Amino acid sequence: MKVLVINAGSSSLKYQLLDMENEKLIAKGNCERIGIDGHFILKANGNVFEKDIDFPNHTVALKTVLKYLTDKKLGVIKSVAEINAVGHRVLHGGEVYTKSVLVDDKVLKNLEELKVLGPLHMPANISGILACQEAMPGVPQVAVFDTEFHSTLPDYAYRYAIPKKAYTDWKIRKYGFHGASHKFIASELEKLVGKKGKFIICHIGNGASISAVKDGKCIETSMGFTPLEGLVMGTRSGDIDPAVVETIMEKTGKNIKEAINYLNKESGLLGVSGISGDIRDIQKVADTNKDAQLSIDMLCYRVKKYIGEYVAVLNGVDAIAFTAGTGENRPEIRQQITDNLDYLGIVVDKDKNYNFKRGEIADITGKGSKCKIYVIPTDEELMIARDTNEIVNKLSKKSAKSSKKSK
Amino acid sequence: MKVLVINAGSSSLKYQLLDMENEKLIAKGNCERIGIDGHFILKANGNVFEKDIDFPNHTVALKTVLKYLTDKKLGVIKSVAEINAVGHRVLHGGEVYTKSVLVDDKVLKNLEELKVLGPLHMPANISGILACQEAMPGVPQVAVFDTEFHSTLPDYAYRYAIPKKAYTDWKIRKYGFHGASHKFIASELEKLVGKKGKFIICHIGNGASISAVKDGKCIETSMGFTPLEGLVMGTRSGDIDPAVVETIMEKTGKNIKEAINYLNKESGLLGVSGISGDIRDIQKVADTNKDAQLSIDMLCYRVKKYIGEYVAVLNGVDAIAFTAGTGENRPEIRQQITDNLDYLGIVVDKDKNYNFKRGEIADITGKGSKCKIYVIPTDEELMIARDTNEIVNKLSKKSAKSSKKSK
Repeated sequence: MKVLVINAGSSSLKYQLLDMENEKLIAKGNCERIGIDGHFILKANGNVFEKDIDFPNHTVALKTVLKYLTDKKLGVIKSVAEINAVGHRVLHGGEVYTKSVLVDDKVLKNLEELKVLGPLHMPANISGILACQEAMPGVPQVAVFDTEFHSTLPDYAYRYAIPKKAYTDWKIRKYGFHGASHKFIASELEKLVGKKGKFIICHIGNGASISAVKDGKCIETSMGFTPLEGLVMGTRSGDIDPAVVETIMEKTGKNIKEAINYLNKESGLLGVSGISGDIRDIQKVADTNKDAQLSIDMLCYRVKKYIGEYVAVLNGVDAIAFTAGTGENRPEIRQQITDNLDYLGIVVDKDKNYNFKRGEIADITGKGSKCKIYVIPTDEELMIARDTNEIVNKLSKKSAKSSKKSK
Repeated sequence: MKVLVINAGSSSLKYQLLDMENEKLIAKGNCERIGIDGHFILKANGNVFEKDIDFPNHTVALKTVLKYLTDKKLGVIKSVAEINAVGHRVLHGGEVYTKSVLVDDKVLKNLEELKVLGPLHMPANISGILACQEAMPGVPQVAVFDTEFHSTLPDYAYRYAIPKKAYTDWKIRKYGFHGASHKFIASELEKLVGKKGKFIICHIGNGASISAVKDGKCIETSMGFTPLEGLVMGTRSGDIDPAVVETIMEKTGKNIKEAINYLNKESGLLGVSGISGDIRDIQKVADTNKDAQLSIDMLCYRVKKYIGEYVAVLNGVDAIAFTAGTGENRPEIRQQITDNLDYLGIVVDKDKNYNFKRGEIADITGKGSKCKIYVIPTDEELMIARDTNEIVNKLSKKSAKSSKKSK
């Protein structure tokens, strides 16, 4: 069973091919600058193949992926027929999809309707699916939603304190995102801890979110109606007094779309530091640049506050995980976040935190800590492939049963 | 030393006269419906005096207060000369005033400039001061700011993750409000606990805010640039994904001012319950009305999350206080907020929580609690009178010194 995972953005199409017998990565790459010009990358068998290729749309990009995956010289797979299913990362399932789903015409229609909830991402996600349907007719397509893992939030956690109509008619509620990552890390934590417990998962990358998981279910998360809410991110403000939007509009003359764009694209680490949205650039100069240091302090402080929130909501914590770019690779950030949290039973071992093999799971729990603390590399694509695999397997069992019956 | 405390709103002027020798209340009341028609209330010596009186402006209202305070039949004081100073509750000190201040021309000019930060309250606050200056020339006026107590927040707590210019040029930052109440309760907690420690103060009324106090200094609070941010309030949403503002505008056709007004006036308990912004009305029907119950659950859950946040920020907690209308008088709410927080060392004694004499300080700490938990009636007016008294006393000592010198 081989699964192709597609993560389609507005001008890119990232892909991974996985062998689900052993969950090993066979190949991965990216089609960049779709609709602009085009650049193709494929990594497999330890080699990198790159080429400028014109991508007028996602279909051409997807066909290019299939062409080179089956290229004899590159030696990845022999034919497209080896791909048993495609898993698509889809931003938004709204309240319609609380589980991954096999794509059919009805699902596609629903996804079209969900565009309003994710106007930036959903059109590209749908393009990715349509491109695969065209290029690989008959191959099952599965939609895996970024919101899915958070669909178990209780109503008092996902509702906002605004008129009910805003929820019932306009679908305004907390949805949460980064679901595949939080779900993957939760399953890793279960294995590490040996039980479904009380987990806090800190996914800190360019986008960042944190979630509280209890007995296998997500019960709280920091992103909201959109990915703008919550932690301080690369270019996103995260939490802010909503009245600030009015003052930004007054002072800048921006309209509401532009003002929200300002909070999404010009804020966060970039806005405070004035340097970059990339924590690595900021850390380089933080010793001598106060604004850079402040942006780091704000990021860490916000995560610390959320950890406290979630310990309260869970009434305890069995394990905390750090994941994603910053979470996995920036020991200073993990250290600053967890410093002075011993009252909550959270203690990191400084030596372990700074010294472990990158890309592997690390236990960084310190002496006296009441909970385990881990660094776990996230793998959203593997999670998507697992969901896809599971759905397609069920499907084939079902069809085997029904064909048996008809005999 | 008698201090008159003035709390001027856009169409009201609340007042209290206090004897600072013993911090006893001499009289209190309200001028209602200023600029509309007018209704006057005065309570003193166990009696209530009420009368419809036309109040075209705050000056007429203030003169009416002075007239009846010195009315022979009512027997409160003999002459206006007995009033040694006036303390004014002022919403916003911005970053200009981090302490209460004696009002002079320069202060008045600064207050005018601070109007932009509090366009709803500041004009009324200034009117109150001008009315007193006119009616009681020569009597010292002191401005006590709602933001003052929170001016000690560290930068990583008060800054938002938006471009620096928004802070430096447009003064967008977290200010915090309800300062007089939080300051008063912090001073009460110090007395109760016998030390400056780690305190969490939950001021839950129609407006609601929570603060973290460490060694006498406020280090975090839930209200922000405006009083909209933070907890679920009577009609205010509190925390919400700022991107929601865009969708509200799209769906309703409201402009930005109207959309923020919707979050301030039509949201919170009122919006979710669809019944009332008053928790008492909601509690009455919550047994059979799901929306009512949800609004209560959301209010309690939000406070619980903040308590967790502040325990993290403080790395511990010595005492928690509940105050203001709901905080003082709704045991069910206190109970629901603190249920299942034992991991944080927070345990309320149910019996103590439900049974104590209203209006008095109550210790509701439960068995096994690592921190003390109190219900403390707030007294913002007393806090304002204390600040006023202190400033005027310093002033008279100073002038006594300089007159001694000049001899």
